Amino acid sequence: MTAMIRPRSISGMQELLPTEQITFNHYKDIVRKHFELTGAVPLNTSAFELREVLMAKEESNNTSSIEKQVYGVHRIANEHNETNFALRFDLTVPMARFVAQHASKLIFPFRRYQIQPVWRGERAQAGRYREFIQCDIDVIGDQTLNLINDAELPIIIDGIFKDMNIGPFQIHMSNRKLLGGLLLGAGIPANSITNALRLIDKIAKVGQDEIRKQFFQLYRLKDNQIDLIITYTSLRGPVDEVIDKLLTLVEQNHKANETYKVGIKELTTVSEIVYSLGLTSKTFILDLSVARGLSYYTGTVYETTLTNHPALGSICSGGRYDNLVGLYSNRKLPGVGMSIGLTRLISHLMHKGLLQQAKPSIEPVLIIVFNHSYLGRYLSIANRLRQAGIATEIATEQTNISQQFKYANRKGFRLAIIAGEKEFINGTWQLKDMTTRKQIVVNNSKLVETINKMLAC
Amino acid sequence: MTAMIRPRSISGMQELLPTEQITFNHYKDIVRKHFELTGAVPLNTSAFELREVLMAKEESNNTSSIEKQVYGVHRIANEHNETNFALRFDLTVPMARFVAQHASKLIFPFRRYQIQPVWRGERAQAGRYREFIQCDIDVIGDQTLNLINDAELPIIIDGIFKDMNIGPFQIHMSNRKLLGGLLLGAGIPANSITNALRLIDKIAKVGQDEIRKQFFQLYRLKDNQIDLIITYTSLRGPVDEVIDKLLTLVEQNHKANETYKVGIKELTTVSEIVYSLGLTSKTFILDLSVARGLSYYTGTVYETTLTNHPALGSICSGGRYDNLVGLYSNRKLPGVGMSIGLTRLISHLMHKGLLQQAKPSIEPVLIIVFNHSYLGRYLSIANRLRQAGIATEIATEQTNISQQFKYANRKGFRLAIIAGEKEFINGTWQLKDMTTRKQIVVNNSKLVETINKMLAC
Repeated sequence: MTAMIRPRSISGMQELLPTEQITFNHYKDIVRKHFELTGAVPLNTSAFELREVLMAKEESNNTSSIEKQVYGVHRIANEHNETNFALRFDLTVPMARFVAQHASKLIFPFRRYQIQPVWRGERAQAGRYREFIQCDIDVIGDQTLNLINDAELPIIIDGIFKDMNIGPFQIHMSNRKLLGGLLLGAGIPANSITNALRLIDKIAKVGQDEIRKQFFQLYRLKDNQIDLIITYTSLRGPVDEVIDKLLTLVEQNHKANETYKVGIKELTTVSEIVYSLGLTSKTFILDLSVARGLSYYTGTVYETTLTNHPALGSICSGGRYDNLVGLYSNRKLPGVGMSIGLTRLISHLMHKGLLQQAKPSIEPVLIIVFNHSYLGRYLSIANRLRQAGIATEIATEQTNISQQFKYANRKGFRLAIIAGEKEFINGTWQLKDMTTRKQIVVNNSKLVETINKMLAC
Repeated sequence: MTAMIRPRSISGMQELLPTEQITFNHYKDIVRKHFELTGAVPLNTSAFELREVLMAKEESNNTSSIEKQVYGVHRIANEHNETNFALRFDLTVPMARFVAQHASKLIFPFRRYQIQPVWRGERAQAGRYREFIQCDIDVIGDQTLNLINDAELPIIIDGIFKDMNIGPFQIHMSNRKLLGGLLLGAGIPANSITNALRLIDKIAKVGQDEIRKQFFQLYRLKDNQIDLIITYTSLRGPVDEVIDKLLTLVEQNHKANETYKVGIKELTTVSEIVYSLGLTSKTFILDLSVARGLSYYTGTVYETTLTNHPALGSICSGGRYDNLVGLYSNRKLPGVGMSIGLTRLISHLMHKGLLQQAKPSIEPVLIIVFNHSYLGRYLSIANRLRQAGIATEIATEQTNISQQFKYANRKGFRLAIIAGEKEFINGTWQLKDMTTRKQIVVNNSKLVETINKMLAC
């Protein structure tokens, strides 16, 4: 026998107690249900990717912040041999790789959902996870992809967060063409647009003054150019209001270029469809400070905030990417997607005590073991209930009845079934409602029906 | 822009096309349903474990075959720094660690299910996976764990495979105490029992003659001792038959020790409960050649075979382990569990063409886009149906109607909804059954009801 090993888990890798996991699964099931209702098919990719595939974006991407966090894997037995494997850090890159690889076998538009963990070598810190569950939905078109897909995603997401019932939230939408065109018009060189967009993405965090300073230092913009950028990216509000202001600004700004105009048009089309479907400014607004840090976005971009939890940041983000699959394929396969960071969201709300905690049991019925020599018969009752779809457990370990009832209370069972010699002979059951403590006698033939009725209350 | 990267997946890491993944999820959902019906709570552990935790068994276990396959992980940015993380190779060890770690917060008996991937550095070979989904159910008791749990697991597993409808199967049960006691009585030293059990486990593979040879070479057993072992471990059949023979052999074999007798008693108790619940020798037999390679099993052991696919080997195995959690805790926490290797099972049946393949779509209804200027209205119909629980998609990409119907056929939609100017004015819908090709006109107020009726057929 080896010496005892102290059992420990790894910081930044959340592990939930059963009650918490039941709660978590409840929210995960809501996401899956909504994704499937809109016709998305499931995609699961392997945890490992070839490094060169995973890092395809690296050279063209100045921030290697994600790349620094990537985990490599190799067999311990060959510890010092090079391997070419690494763990996925998001679900978008594996999806793009999968689509490029299997394009000939997929039916386009390919609408997939993917709910899997991803891994990042984050430093241990509250709210930072090294393993977390992402819930992604994306639509990939062949050659073209109608803008209606950009409008449909926020509606799906709206449905999910409403169903989750986790308080008021707001989806913020913007457009990278509009922002890119604006920056170009304001004098930023074409090859610096992505970095400038990242600056804008930081306004909320570092403040306008800092952004002004940086726009001057990095790009030598004039005051009026910086003013223009700040004015635009401060636009935020109901669709009509923001679109009106944008159109006015176009008239004032004679240098407005084509990209910029296309951006306004896309933003208008998408947001009009969203509003026409009943979403209001309570849950959906335009917000031109949303730029997204990732370089692959090319049009619509989204972020979602929980109104009562601004510090959480965006709980669901995404956007339109016209060239991502192009890293792996010559075929033009434009896409749009959104992603919910479920681990962070649920664990935050859980710690704040804002989620209705599940009971520490999945099943509602406990069978009391009145006489241990009848264990087989109790198991037979359990089977009968389970076959009728009623989740049931048998109290096999507690030696006396009062311990069994204590267990029933602690684990939160709704009903207890008590049966002994007398009941077996009479073909009846004692049914106890654990909440009201009322106990009734039920005939064998009515057992399932009666339990279903009591559970429905 | 970087050069294009050839998209590739990693051999031994299965990735399914959508239709296959829908099929796979269908079977995974069956497992989850049955696990939850019997009161098991979900447990998800992190993909990473501390190496020392994962390798706790290493020294006491002669076969380091699993250990050789373990993947270590570290951040690529720190490639050559040692880290202490590795990927789990099964779900039993993480569960034991979790139980030891959180024992004070768990309610015992702790019955958990766990459906997650595990990773092993296997050589690429057909049917060998480096990543595969395990479906585990275990019950852990505090101090004691009633034998009824050993009987309940095969019944749960029987329910799952019946529900999966994948052909005849048979659960084989044996007992390590019985086998261990037998080997001890036959002259094998106590510290070699585990290795000798592994030999027995190989009989089916290498044949009796080879096993006889090895028992002689390794332990210098006499012919009559080896005969006894071979006679016992060849016992296989219906419960009553095997138990009868075991009892006769006890009488003949005067050296029968205590462990051996306890083994027979456990086997009898467990199998009698199993049979009393309606399982017959068609799906449940005793089979004393089942020994299981892992050293932590201490009593009941199980394997399951698909009658028509003997080459697949065991598709669901497990057993009773009284000391596993003892690697991490002083508390006595005996357990029993079974595990389904879902990836291997489903992919085997899929490749043989034996699973009913799902349709390449999850949703049954497609909305035909008769006029692209009404996209918002089509999306609005989709939303209405989705809110009524009817999974619906809109044909947004195909420019003409015949392309849309081609798409509907290819993706396997059950119904198509057609609406244009006329329908919008009249408040009616054209509903087309894609199988019968019949088309009917439905009033707006009857839409959901009519669709539900048609889908129910």
